[in-house]
Amino acid sequence: MSVVALAGGVGAARFLEGLVRVVPPEEVTVIVNTGDDMANFMGLYISPDLDIVTYTLAGIVDPEKGWGIKGDTTRALSMLQELGFETWFTLGDRDLGTHIARTAMLQQGWSLSKATQVISHSLGVRCQLFPMTEKWVPTRIVTDVGLLHFEEYLVKRQARDNVEDVIFDGIESAEPSPGILDAIQHAETLIICPSNPIVSIGPILAVPGIKEAIVEASAPCVGVSPIIGGKPVKGPADKLMEGKGVEVSAKGVAEFYREFLDILVIDQKDKSLTPKIEELGVNAVVEQTLLTSMERKKQLARTVLAAARNKKSKS
Amino acid sequence: MSVVALAGGVGAARFLEGLVRVVPPEEVTVIVNTGDDMANFMGLYISPDLDIVTYTLAGIVDPEKGWGIKGDTTRALSMLQELGFETWFTLGDRDLGTHIARTAMLQQGWSLSKATQVISHSLGVRCQLFPMTEKWVPTRIVTDVGLLHFEEYLVKRQARDNVEDVIFDGIESAEPSPGILDAIQHAETLIICPSNPIVSIGPILAVPGIKEAIVEASAPCVGVSPIIGGKPVKGPADKLMEGKGVEVSAKGVAEFYREFLDILVIDQKDKSLTPKIEELGVNAVVEQTLLTSMERKKQLARTVLAAARNKKSKS
Repeated sequence: MSVVALAGGVGAARFLEGLVRVVPPEEVTVIVNTGDDMANFMGLYISPDLDIVTYTLAGIVDPEKGWGIKGDTTRALSMLQELGFETWFTLGDRDLGTHIARTAMLQQGWSLSKATQVISHSLGVRCQLFPMTEKWVPTRIVTDVGLLHFEEYLVKRQARDNVEDVIFDGIESAEPSPGILDAIQHAETLIICPSNPIVSIGPILAVPGIKEAIVEASAPCVGVSPIIGGKPVKGPADKLMEGKGVEVSAKGVAEFYREFLDILVIDQKDKSLTPKIEELGVNAVVEQTLLTSMERKKQLARTVLAAARNKKSKS
Repeated sequence: MSVVALAGGVGAARFLEGLVRVVPPEEVTVIVNTGDDMANFMGLYISPDLDIVTYTLAGIVDPEKGWGIKGDTTRALSMLQELGFETWFTLGDRDLGTHIARTAMLQQGWSLSKATQVISHSLGVRCQLFPMTEKWVPTRIVTDVGLLHFEEYLVKRQARDNVEDVIFDGIESAEPSPGILDAIQHAETLIICPSNPIVSIGPILAVPGIKEAIVEASAPCVGVSPIIGGKPVKGPADKLMEGKGVEVSAKGVAEFYREFLDILVIDQKDKSLTPKIEELGVNAVVEQTLLTSMERKKQLARTVLAAARNKKSKS
């Protein structure tokens, strides 16, 4: 039953909430994007996607925002503001405990993988979370106002700048975190979560060796489109896809992943795209992909797994 | 009217609260002990005495404990505990804002003096606070269970170990923070706050140049005894004084400072020690020194200043 999923932030986390309820979580390995990481934000190493996935699977995420901790306060942040620091990036108080812990672990020489394991398991997450790489490889957005760290682009400037290009800084020399390639090779099912293809899944695929392992893996690879009716469910995927010349549609997603994708689960709204997707050599499976309830999340996970099983039995 | 005060933590801070109400705070320079500093506590630079003095003078200190911020919460700390970290040193949430800010400032190359100035002024403190030195010089307590950082001795192990000696680690090569020697030289009044002589004032005096400047300064030097009736008002000063062979009494305090002390303000309870103190060449002035109200704090400051004026007019 071993499942390996590539994940970004909120969309992926919500999908994974369903997945770990229909598969034993111990069988699930999640490879998480770390391109959004800030290696030294006021002295702290901050890993937004790892936190989102961890908090969501630990059942403590703020359900409205999809990030941060439910009911968290921002007392430390208001002190930082009084002391003249930037506060565009929200740091909750409990959340700060995570950042301080992770930073301290890294400073004492632990790997990001080990820190991730300790944090996620301490909070009760039972699946295996991995950062895509141990190396800091910041995603930088080339815009008309200059080069921005992804979080500056997204949070500080509210994704208002024109995207000209996306750079995964230093990724050529990054290595997959230990264990990842093995997990991909031995997986029975590979899943591309409903995340931003350019800045969430893109960095993971750009770590040398990961895409190659997925292409070569024997397991079927099933994606879930984060684009419904030509629009991203959340976030600026449309602008980033446009910036990289990718069509903002479920078909664009299929095209982006076509090298290794066997099946793309698309929303009912996009049913009419099925022939165009299948022309690309990717099977389309239609489902309700807007994850508005736990039942929907579980249903989507079941659909993904069934599509993978169906593919395997045919091959 | 320029006043320079040597200060440790809670006792000093409470005295200074009165002082800045009877002297224009802009005229007051406070040289604060940093021997208790932890340079890397979970990645954070923590300066307990600077925080106590800052929070107290900013009017935000927890009045019961004498340290930390009034009404502060410990949500980050409970997360750190969930993640397996030590929590014997209380880090409040607002308080963490200070630690993160200070650590970030030091990391970006600012001096501890500059960080102290920004933090204290941002919080509304109008006198000048200086760390005694920019260098990290941890006070280590030699005990029967081994060498302990002062905060480990005091907070983690609740001062329960036998004190054999006190070491100011690396102090031989420390330099006074820029501006301190000048302030001492030009002061009209020098004050030794009611702090632990061994671990609060002792480290300040041990920074090469500071004691010498005080000895040579023309201003009268007035101390306030932190020992009342043979007992410290707060903290383990008795154990530390005994460990260093200093008599645990107002007389012991006078003896410890006799090289430069002109006047020691002692509590009414210790009135009978006056002849013994004066035998040491230190004038004794009797006052109520238990700082149970703002009026008492102001009264003690007035007494200290009057004693200094009196000394000057005689000399």
